[in-house]
Amino acid sequence: MLRNPIPLQSAIKLTMEHTPLMAAEEVSLSDSYRRILAEPIIAKHNIPPFNRAPYDGFAIRSQDSAQASEQHRVVFRVVDHIGAGSLSNKPLEQGEAVRIMTGAAMPDHADAVVMLEQAKLIESENSFTIRKSFRPQENVSLKGEDASVGKVLLEAGEQIDPGTIALLATLGYSKVKVAKRPVVGIIATGSELLNIDEPLVAGKIRNSNGPMLEAQLDRMNIPFLSYGKMNDQLEDCYHRMKQALTETDCLITTGGVSVGDFDYLPAIYEKLGAKVLFNKIAMRPGSVTTLAVLEGKLLFGLSGNPSACYTAFELFTRPALLGMMGASKPYLCHTKAELSEDFTKANPFMRFIRSRISYAEGRAFVAPTGFNKSNAVTSLAKANALIVLPGGSRGFTKGDVVDVLLLGTEDGGREWKI
Amino acid sequence: MLRNPIPLQSAIKLTMEHTPLMAAEEVSLSDSYRRILAEPIIAKHNIPPFNRAPYDGFAIRSQDSAQASEQHRVVFRVVDHIGAGSLSNKPLEQGEAVRIMTGAAMPDHADAVVMLEQAKLIESENSFTIRKSFRPQENVSLKGEDASVGKVLLEAGEQIDPGTIALLATLGYSKVKVAKRPVVGIIATGSELLNIDEPLVAGKIRNSNGPMLEAQLDRMNIPFLSYGKMNDQLEDCYHRMKQALTETDCLITTGGVSVGDFDYLPAIYEKLGAKVLFNKIAMRPGSVTTLAVLEGKLLFGLSGNPSACYTAFELFTRPALLGMMGASKPYLCHTKAELSEDFTKANPFMRFIRSRISYAEGRAFVAPTGFNKSNAVTSLAKANALIVLPGGSRGFTKGDVVDVLLLGTEDGGREWKI
Repeated sequence: MLRNPIPLQSAIKLTMEHTPLMAAEEVSLSDSYRRILAEPIIAKHNIPPFNRAPYDGFAIRSQDSAQASEQHRVVFRVVDHIGAGSLSNKPLEQGEAVRIMTGAAMPDHADAVVMLEQAKLIESENSFTIRKSFRPQENVSLKGEDASVGKVLLEAGEQIDPGTIALLATLGYSKVKVAKRPVVGIIATGSELLNIDEPLVAGKIRNSNGPMLEAQLDRMNIPFLSYGKMNDQLEDCYHRMKQALTETDCLITTGGVSVGDFDYLPAIYEKLGAKVLFNKIAMRPGSVTTLAVLEGKLLFGLSGNPSACYTAFELFTRPALLGMMGASKPYLCHTKAELSEDFTKANPFMRFIRSRISYAEGRAFVAPTGFNKSNAVTSLAKANALIVLPGGSRGFTKGDVVDVLLLGTEDGGREWKI
Repeated sequence: MLRNPIPLQSAIKLTMEHTPLMAAEEVSLSDSYRRILAEPIIAKHNIPPFNRAPYDGFAIRSQDSAQASEQHRVVFRVVDHIGAGSLSNKPLEQGEAVRIMTGAAMPDHADAVVMLEQAKLIESENSFTIRKSFRPQENVSLKGEDASVGKVLLEAGEQIDPGTIALLATLGYSKVKVAKRPVVGIIATGSELLNIDEPLVAGKIRNSNGPMLEAQLDRMNIPFLSYGKMNDQLEDCYHRMKQALTETDCLITTGGVSVGDFDYLPAIYEKLGAKVLFNKIAMRPGSVTTLAVLEGKLLFGLSGNPSACYTAFELFTRPALLGMMGASKPYLCHTKAELSEDFTKANPFMRFIRSRISYAEGRAFVAPTGFNKSNAVTSLAKANALIVLPGGSRGFTKGDVVDVLLLGTEDGGREWKI
């Protein structure tokens, strides 16, 4: 069974072209963290909504301070006293001031704030003097200075982060329109697999891909249904997948996609009537990653090898799921860093190396996290980045600048080319 | 009421010195994402636990291949056929081979794997020939090559990420010992505050700090109890805080920490008997950040201004909460980047500017996200980083390299000095 490997970028392009779009739904603001906006956010009102005091002090009419100087201090009489949230009902007349606290609305006619430390109090007379003149709007936080009404503040497709939530709360979005999240099914296949709580027996290993994928989805705040592990039995797997497809929006299987005698996934895709878009990619690890599509749903057939499975999820499944929600930045963030140790192995294929990026002396450094085979698992546990080495490349040496994809960042990236 | 501002690093140091340590608990692996390990993870067995085939092919005794060449192909007879998870019960004799699939344990006496494409099949006779000799262990994934039994793979204090979960699953950690998470109480104070779903009225704004802090805690996977918003009433706030302290491990209040006439927090700390560690920091925004401690619990008094509140949470509360769980990397990741636009305002204080970091042409660029006052909220919505400008600095111009703290990264950082 010969397979034709396609370039990585073609595989990503095919994935994104076949990604269905989820509908929108309204959720309460407190449930909206990490959701993708399905509507632009427009300033419904000015921010701030009124002129206010940015400091504790005295609101005055700036014109009344015009003559103030070191030699000629000007006196103000305090006629009211308001905290944030209160309004003064005393429009200022000449020489009058209102004691005002940070965040309180400016009284009528007032257009400047004398900071507490700029005023010399005459306590007994409930008045104070100043020794400088104030410009109109001096020390005033102006209505609309942060955003004026009608301004588009965020586009649909942006991810909601804590800062976004502060903005939405400010504008009164107690509910917000976001993309529905796809429900992802996970099925681990392989007769060698034990459950985590089972003791090791000869020839078997525990199912690490299932829990790992659950955490990769948790990391994205994407719900999932786990269908456990399956032996390499065509009929059983077929029925489990068929069932999972009725309950989920996207299905991930691990294992069974190679060309071995017990790799049944190709036969199952055929039996399901799924169209295989690709089944081999010119990359390491993850070369046997398969993507099939059935009735608009994506079926990811990831490798049973943990490093290959992890990498293919981040490169294909992650952007596809974000794409399903209309995210404007569905890809991993791409940067560059200096190799902090030699990596001498040459390889004809594009490679993704589990790595740690760190920052020192104003520079970014990256080093492989260890043992680097597709079935490795320890190197995954310390990785916060993937080094990308182009295909056909020689080995690399310490100090070489290499491409890096960042893992586990809340913020996404736009398309990158390497 | 004069306050003595302390340097940022002193405030961070004081915070971390007064951070209590949470106890440990066991959680199931599926609940362990983003928890902090309370025990080192040791390889309970070799990874992989047995010699196995990394490819589909034929397991042979390498010694039997010694004479193979282009001219003299050597014949092997297939005596068994195993998939991953199965064992062959036929120890190899001379000239024998076992058809073996990726991941299957090597049969007894076998020490090399002939890849499928290296074998010329003679189907009718159930045998194949090879034209090269194989070295012992050629194409074999060796027992313990990823990790040998007894090796310390992760230290206590590491955060559990999806790669960690793959490793823990591999080793059979169906339960894992992690630090208990502190439960954080949130109280927003300020008579100017409306709930998110309330219409604006003159002089009032909606409570954005409460929902924002909830999301900042969500981002860290830290549970919280929200006690809503309070008017600036000493007695009411006091009782609410007193109650919250019985139900939480750490308390965040927003507002009321300035020196205004309605800023009751200092009086409440006194009435509670809490010891104030600092109440002013030489930084912008967030200068009025207060930290008090009562019966070993930290009470963070954050500013009512959203940008100040957000920044102080990330600089003080976040590392304190991670420190309570014994995290080895409780700080924001620190890096440097080139300013992609001028930032001309000079300021005597150390400043934290809400910013976006982006990567292009192998360089990191950073730009302020907009309006930059402590009461700004729109600039928070697009920030994925904080630019740090040292105190006493002049303005900065495009191309200057500046310090940057990364927001929303799963991975934490170690202590930084700026």
